[in-house]
Amino acid sequence: MNVETLAIGTELLLGQIVNTNASDIAVRLAESGLTHMRQTVVGDNAERMESAIAHAVARSDALIITGGIGPTADDITRDAVAAVAGVPLFFDEQYAKDMRTRWERRARDFPESNLRQAYRPEGAIVIENPKGSAPGFRIEVDGCWVLALPGVPEEMWTMLDDQVMPFLRSLDGEESSVVVSRVLHTWGMSEAAVGELLDDLFHTSQNPTVAFLASAGVIKIRLTAHAATTDDAKALIEPLDVAVRSRLGDRVFGVDDQTIEQIIHTSLLERGWTIATAESATAGLVASRLTSIPGSSQTFRGSIGAYAADIKVSLLGVSASVIEERGIVSEDTALAMAHGARSLLGADVAVAVTGSAGPTALEVEAGTMCVAVVTPNGERARTFKMPGDRERVRTYTATAALHQVRLALSSP
Amino acid sequence: MNVETLAIGTELLLGQIVNTNASDIAVRLAESGLTHMRQTVVGDNAERMESAIAHAVARSDALIITGGIGPTADDITRDAVAAVAGVPLFFDEQYAKDMRTRWERRARDFPESNLRQAYRPEGAIVIENPKGSAPGFRIEVDGCWVLALPGVPEEMWTMLDDQVMPFLRSLDGEESSVVVSRVLHTWGMSEAAVGELLDDLFHTSQNPTVAFLASAGVIKIRLTAHAATTDDAKALIEPLDVAVRSRLGDRVFGVDDQTIEQIIHTSLLERGWTIATAESATAGLVASRLTSIPGSSQTFRGSIGAYAADIKVSLLGVSASVIEERGIVSEDTALAMAHGARSLLGADVAVAVTGSAGPTALEVEAGTMCVAVVTPNGERARTFKMPGDRERVRTYTATAALHQVRLALSSP
Repeated sequence: MNVETLAIGTELLLGQIVNTNASDIAVRLAESGLTHMRQTVVGDNAERMESAIAHAVARSDALIITGGIGPTADDITRDAVAAVAGVPLFFDEQYAKDMRTRWERRARDFPESNLRQAYRPEGAIVIENPKGSAPGFRIEVDGCWVLALPGVPEEMWTMLDDQVMPFLRSLDGEESSVVVSRVLHTWGMSEAAVGELLDDLFHTSQNPTVAFLASAGVIKIRLTAHAATTDDAKALIEPLDVAVRSRLGDRVFGVDDQTIEQIIHTSLLERGWTIATAESATAGLVASRLTSIPGSSQTFRGSIGAYAADIKVSLLGVSASVIEERGIVSEDTALAMAHGARSLLGADVAVAVTGSAGPTALEVEAGTMCVAVVTPNGERARTFKMPGDRERVRTYTATAALHQVRLALSSP
Repeated sequence: MNVETLAIGTELLLGQIVNTNASDIAVRLAESGLTHMRQTVVGDNAERMESAIAHAVARSDALIITGGIGPTADDITRDAVAAVAGVPLFFDEQYAKDMRTRWERRARDFPESNLRQAYRPEGAIVIENPKGSAPGFRIEVDGCWVLALPGVPEEMWTMLDDQVMPFLRSLDGEESSVVVSRVLHTWGMSEAAVGELLDDLFHTSQNPTVAFLASAGVIKIRLTAHAATTDDAKALIEPLDVAVRSRLGDRVFGVDDQTIEQIIHTSLLERGWTIATAESATAGLVASRLTSIPGSSQTFRGSIGAYAADIKVSLLGVSASVIEERGIVSEDTALAMAHGARSLLGADVAVAVTGSAGPTALEVEAGTMCVAVVTPNGERARTFKMPGDRERVRTYTATAALHQVRLALSSP
């Protein structure tokens, strides 16, 4: 069943508010296995609203409209729907009377403009609005159900969940299915490289489908299955999940809402270990991410932001000869910083970062970053060449450092 | 001039991400006096993309498309635009070569699928993407300019501001006037309070207009003037700028692109001073923000993330009796931490944070945050009750700490 959404409101086109209704409705449609084909936004303008409604009616099985059903003169959704349906507006005397009674019961003057809300296209059925005064309505137009809801999110949600979604699911009848998505998070490959590795799955797998989403260096792979039940959908996803993981190996680090910070925290807790950081170029970014999750005081000891070179020597005990011979940006310096932080802060694990975030190259090319991790079981160090501007270099380096910690914790 | 926007992405129709690009572009169009007629979202589907593009081309003077220009197989915006324009795809050998060189310079394997990004509709002009690998493009189709940009907001913004908006304004030609905006950044009042203080200006001032934008606790006041020349527009803004500042006092801390970090850095440079941090609840967030600007090594010494209580004592020299009598979250502890960091890290100025970020209350209510600043001229401490979840509490506290530094540096 194909569904479109149409939001009415000049304030959306001026960017004064963000169209969160569209994504909220989108989530509900996906959960119910209804296909969301298109979102549109137009202003409070009769001609453009009618055109958008007419096109959607011609293409789709259902159209959910939000906004334009209030009491003011620019609320013209009912007029536009009536025009497309080719029916007059009908004035609901009983609704008008009830509305007046409700207002008077609260000892408030009834604004006559409210009466606009008692109109609806002839033949339309009311969708009650328990949280506001503007009722919604639904009407079938040329085989497409048009459902009009308020733009106010709190009013819209209740009506959507209690009345609209059950109605759409009942229409959808036996075709209906659930939609289940699983998102695999990967780190360490570009979107293009992940895409190449999974190219055949992307092209051949129809149910579940494969999609990619890049977000600050984390490439997410979404597997989405439609089936009669949640269990059936999960069973469809399972073999594809296995196939994707077998190709990407330890680059897959999390599923759905799992974050790298949470994974490290859990892994440390399991071992009864604590962690500390020593950071030059990132100056606390890694520490602030490790402490972003509730309960991090169980595993996080502290951090040294050793920005000035002399602090690396005086506080972290990096030997001046290592800095001189190997360079301030070197894996040896990073390792010495990690050892220093581990002992100074009394932690089991330490991660250290030294590098040049740019934009100007210092001793090394801007974007050169050395990360070291020391655990009770051993140590590892890596050098990265991070592209982009200073902010991007620092953010990606912090994420890369966290992944080095994850890999160090997962090795035997 | 009528402009439409079209966002490409199945993830938008599934509600997995919110279409913030649409409202960001909407704001820019409004500021430039261009009419934003319609927003549409369709999935990564050739037929529906082509239909949406063809309809927009028939109706509008310009169409801004976001998304679908990356390297993976589901990125088909270039194909769809070429199909509607009735032109083949053109492979830009030079662009491909440059892309390969950039990757190889970073010693990374070049994924061949990246080459998809070297294709564009024949006759299209490249819109450079300084923050990512996918170039945008623009092409005139039946009298409508179609402009394709990436869906990644950071990449899209830069290209929109530096290339797309100037181009659209130049097209708009002689009807057009210059639009100049000045943004005043404030800290320390709620959006509602700022709005109330400026309510009359908001309602009566037509040119320049007054708009509010809240972003992580910073309330921005945007003054936008239309005039024949930039100088004329600036002259219109000037008296309103004076009026706003006279009402808000030292809550206005920056203009346009100035950040609190930049202001502090400049202020320290002027005095020849350096700074250090000692952070408990924010664990490096303040340090990472102070070092976010190029050249921060001139003024930033280092930081101590003293998350565990014993580190406050052993490393920062906070006396155990202060912690016991005043509490680990107290202005006295914060002051002692600042003094400790100042001497340990050899800095002129130190800022310290101690508090409870939540979600569970420890010794104090979650969201209680003490900030202290010590300079060669004196010291100051303040306690904040930060609302919201852990992330919000930490982010706002870091910003509040930076503003305490600013105020400490600006006092005589």
